[in-house]
Amino acid sequence: MKYATRINSFLRTGCTVLEALDMIGSIEGVKYVDMNYPEHFKTFTIEEIREALERNHLRLNAVNLRFREEFLFGAFDNPNLILQRKAVTMCKEAATLCKELSGCQCIIWLGFDGFDYSFQKDYVSSWKDLVACFREVCESVDCKISCEYKPYEERVFAGIESWGSVWKLMEDVGCGNFGITLDFCHMLMKKENPAFAAALLLDKGKLFGIHVNDGEGSTDDGLMVGTVHPFKTLELFYYLKKYDYQDVIYFDTFPKRESAVEECRINRQICGLFEDIIDRVGLEQIDKVISQHSGEAAAELMAQMMSVS
Amino acid sequence: MKYATRINSFLRTGCTVLEALDMIGSIEGVKYVDMNYPEHFKTFTIEEIREALERNHLRLNAVNLRFREEFLFGAFDNPNLILQRKAVTMCKEAATLCKELSGCQCIIWLGFDGFDYSFQKDYVSSWKDLVACFREVCESVDCKISCEYKPYEERVFAGIESWGSVWKLMEDVGCGNFGITLDFCHMLMKKENPAFAAALLLDKGKLFGIHVNDGEGSTDDGLMVGTVHPFKTLELFYYLKKYDYQDVIYFDTFPKRESAVEECRINRQICGLFEDIIDRVGLEQIDKVISQHSGEAAAELMAQMMSVS
Amino acid sequence: MKYATRINSFLRTGCTVLEALDMIGSIEGVKYVDMNYPEHFKTFTIEEIREALERNHLRLNAVNLRFREEFLFGAFDNPNLILQRKAVTMCKEAATLCKELSGCQCIIWLGFDGFDYSFQKDYVSSWKDLVACFREVCESVDCKISCEYKPYEERVFAGIESWGSVWKLMEDVGCGNFGITLDFCHMLMKKENPAFAAALLLDKGKLFGIHVNDGEGSTDDGLMVGTVHPFKTLELFYYLKKYDYQDVIYFDTFPKRESAVEECRINRQICGLFEDIIDRVGLEQIDKVISQHSGEAAAELMAQMMSVS
Amino acid sequence: MKYATRINSFLRTGCTVLEALDMIGSIEGVKYVDMNYPEHFKTFTIEEIREALERNHLRLNAVNLRFREEFLFGAFDNPNLILQRKAVTMCKEAATLCKELSGCQCIIWLGFDGFDYSFQKDYVSSWKDLVACFREVCESVDCKISCEYKPYEERVFAGIESWGSVWKLMEDVGCGNFGITLDFCHMLMKKENPAFAAALLLDKGKLFGIHVNDGEGSTDDGLMVGTVHPFKTLELFYYLKKYDYQDVIYFDTFPKRESAVEECRINRQICGLFEDIIDRVGLEQIDKVISQHSGEAAAELMAQMMSVS
Repeated sequence: MKYATRINSFLRTGCTVLEALDMIGSIEGVKYVDMNYPEHFKTFTIEEIREALERNHLRLNAVNLRFREEFLFGAFDNPNLILQRKAVTMCKEAATLCKELSGCQCIIWLGFDGFDYSFQKDYVSSWKDLVACFREVCESVDCKISCEYKPYEERVFAGIESWGSVWKLMEDVGCGNFGITLDFCHMLMKKENPAFAAALLLDKGKLFGIHVNDGEGSTDDGLMVGTVHPFKTLELFYYLKKYDYQDVIYFDTFPKRESAVEECRINRQICGLFEDIIDRVGLEQIDKVISQHSGEAAAELMAQMMSVS
Repeated sequence: MKYATRINSFLRTGCTVLEALDMIGSIEGVKYVDMNYPEHFKTFTIEEIREALERNHLRLNAVNLRFREEFLFGAFDNPNLILQRKAVTMCKEAATLCKELSGCQCIIWLGFDGFDYSFQKDYVSSWKDLVACFREVCESVDCKISCEYKPYEERVFAGIESWGSVWKLMEDVGCGNFGITLDFCHMLMKKENPAFAAALLLDKGKLFGIHVNDGEGSTDDGLMVGTVHPFKTLELFYYLKKYDYQDVIYFDTFPKRESAVEECRINRQICGLFEDIIDRVGLEQIDKVISQHSGEAAAELMAQMMSVS
Repeated sequence: MKYATRINSFLRTGCTVLEALDMIGSIEGVKYVDMNYPEHFKTFTIEEIREALERNHLRLNAVNLRFREEFLFGAFDNPNLILQRKAVTMCKEAATLCKELSGCQCIIWLGFDGFDYSFQKDYVSSWKDLVACFREVCESVDCKISCEYKPYEERVFAGIESWGSVWKLMEDVGCGNFGITLDFCHMLMKKENPAFAAALLLDKGKLFGIHVNDGEGSTDDGLMVGTVHPFKTLELFYYLKKYDYQDVIYFDTFPKRESAVEECRINRQICGLFEDIIDRVGLEQIDKVISQHSGEAAAELMAQMMSVS
Repeated sequence: MKYATRINSFLRTGCTVLEALDMIGSIEGVKYVDMNYPEHFKTFTIEEIREALERNHLRLNAVNLRFREEFLFGAFDNPNLILQRKAVTMCKEAATLCKELSGCQCIIWLGFDGFDYSFQKDYVSSWKDLVACFREVCESVDCKISCEYKPYEERVFAGIESWGSVWKLMEDVGCGNFGITLDFCHMLMKKENPAFAAALLLDKGKLFGIHVNDGEGSTDDGLMVGTVHPFKTLELFYYLKKYDYQDVIYFDTFPKRESAVEECRINRQICGLFEDIIDRVGLEQIDKVISQHSGEAAAELMAQMMSVS
């Protein structure tokens, strides 16, 4: 599996993006990074970033769109068409940058789109805006475009809020280069079982990215991988391996009290452990358990997973 | 608006289905009932039921499929194909009954389909089963078929669990007579805003039914309409009126400590109050507030709604 | 550790209480049972039950009070004083039975006490009723009395709903034989970390019982131990061992699709595995990790726990 | 009723604390403010603040302690005793300031105390630290000290997390000047019914403060008062009036898309409406409904509340 990590975990300590890349480069087994547009591209040139990536043997995975305060009333569903146009343009710019740096895809999370109050949003026209903007972006760029959803935060209700509605959105958009990024914590917040949607999307070739982390289900806790729900994480890893997932696994965790380097290293260590557990039990053995539709067999498999490695 | 109520609220006191119909017939403003298949059709003939409906000036709204203990391992996604076939057959039988009694639609809720444990279900083949069975039912009957979802209970994770995934399912099934029934409490359980999905479905002509009730969001509390979230309920009613919803509003509440007749009467009274509030404020005025995308305007509208009637 | 299991999991298949005891007796490592009063004492005499316990080398752990439909409006907080008196009397009867069968304690869960709607309950007088009734029971019996709380179900809001409020209740009651039973799923429903309250109660000698199971946090799922939150369960087991807990660990799980015997056996197997994991890592090593207040150290400990056994 | 509002809602636009006070002074019906220590006392002298309060006819309600990044590992439960001492000292300083400005109380919210991971915290010694620090603060100052709890955020699990555990804490601290501040959103996050704890605390004279706002229950949404749960808010207001609450009602809302002045004005307007609704129905009439323990009567009261004003 290929692993990427989050630059902002490192920036928090006051270093620059290039220094963050140097730190990430020192972490064994992490060969990719995601970068946020525009914020991570403000201080250094593309050339400087490319060079920092290369000297650290890192590759760019995704460019993540970050719409900030200017888009308080929404990016794609902003009632102000000038801002909506600006948001679409930013996505195209990000796609160009992504290509220049040989990145794999752009990820669009519309944190400010949605609503806080009843009677605050025309849902039907908002949905049409989302479809139209995603389609325009997808048709304009030579790059995979992936939609990441989160049920709430920034808004009390997001415009795109569940795996099902992203899938519906994908059909409405109707572009081959449009796919979905799942985020483990966001799925817990929506009371989804991560492996469920992952399997359905993998089966259709539409899982473009996966953000791993963990949490308690109410907020986007960003805890280290597997520290709350190891079996849900293991089930997810099983499907990634079963479908030979070739995209990148991204650590979307939020070290606050932790050292960014140490925390990333432990994420990587736990993922390695989980890969090892899946390999030791074996895909065939897990397939066999699943085919029994049995709570007993599933529980015994989980017990086995805690002692196989 | 047309209103229906739940027969099981009445049966709980030990009466028969016919006696329940007589009680419901006495409640002003409730002109429809939903009946569960097979359980409400076991004691009396179709003729007896028809006669009881007629003498109470009641009409049949929906026939609701109820898969009970035999389908513990699922109806449409049951790994035992004999049981899966039986479930499909039951749906066809229900559709026939529905027609004979001049009902409007069959509602299929797959309470037992889904999973409790990680590694217990092959999600991809399960989804395919759901699509195939719904399609077979839809193609076999001359009746609207509506899918009702609930995120959990009976299963810890339901196979069909959100408005988005039902919408995706609807596209995969691809039949014109296939639509969706939303349930207010089930939507709260999934952290959905009821009016959001309702608006999108109404706009596409795919909202076949709406179950009203209220609750705290963790379980299917079945409280009386509007007693916890009156503004979410009012927003829903606004969209029903805006799109001139012609189907029936069903009280899916669970009186436990309450008298079934009184509780139904109060549901109806509150719905009448809410209709009145929407009418007094006026669709145009509400449209105007929504078009402002403003928290302030939305909050002032809500305050107005509490004093307009 | 001593383990007990739930008789109703077995009765579900249609057997008698005595037959259930025979089945439980066949499960290795489970040496205790809890029995519900009055329902498990209706068919057989005390002598017959005692004999069935003895022939299966089982001991009675707790007698659990079960207030059923008659107490729909509450047991201890029932506004009808005749029913409140009856509830208190039932507790005293249960304590007598418990003594006769050499049980360890009575557990009182007030499932029907509480409220569904705003403006339905006088909270202050209700709390006073709860305090007075618990005190009366505690003072009348020669037996440990343990209060089990659950935040909701049967009621939408329970009268006793969190570890904190039970602890407050305990102080208001002020009897030495009054303590608390924690239930893992109930704690998840209230967004509590089980080990947190367990540690505080163990430190005061007030953890009278612990119900283990697992779930997703919205409802009382009753899944097998550790199948969702193994680390929360392991942290709980660590404190039980650290404080040399001498009471019984009760499997409060709800096999639905599972065989009761198999499911109980797997619960016991997983608890054995978890005890083994704690022992292999060692209390001292875990103490040392905890004393560091470090997310990194905690995560590494959890990774170690998945590979130590 | 007396109303206060939140200064940070105004500072967000870039104005100074004194300018914020001028803006608040312009809002009819809001006669109090809360100020955060140390952050709101950094730019201006006490004299300047006192003068700004006076010219705006405002009074200081509470000084709220705000422990920021330095206290990432906790204030009262910080394992570093130097920082713990510093936190206690800050509380004493805040109490002095509060007195100088004729404020009513200090509110201590320990946002950073608690834990993110299993095995990260020694719960027993942490609780003892909390008790000792609160006691030291209470005994050292001539001022009411009120503890505000929030179940999570900043930490994944807070050290003080529910009304019950604060009440227990209050008993352990054992000081007459120690009380509790309830926050509506925080209570929803913990699945509590605000009026329940408020009634019990009012009955004991221990409700020192109340923060009103609204939200969906997963996060601290800070929506305008009553916009999601008007009946829960009305029930709370009923108890405030019934017990003749003389402390201040504080708007702890977070206008993001809204104008701070307008949003505050609407909060005040809605509270006025709710006071009016309670008055029109009348305490005696509400008492009578509550005394019936009836869902039907409660629901009819709620319907009445929507049309009485």
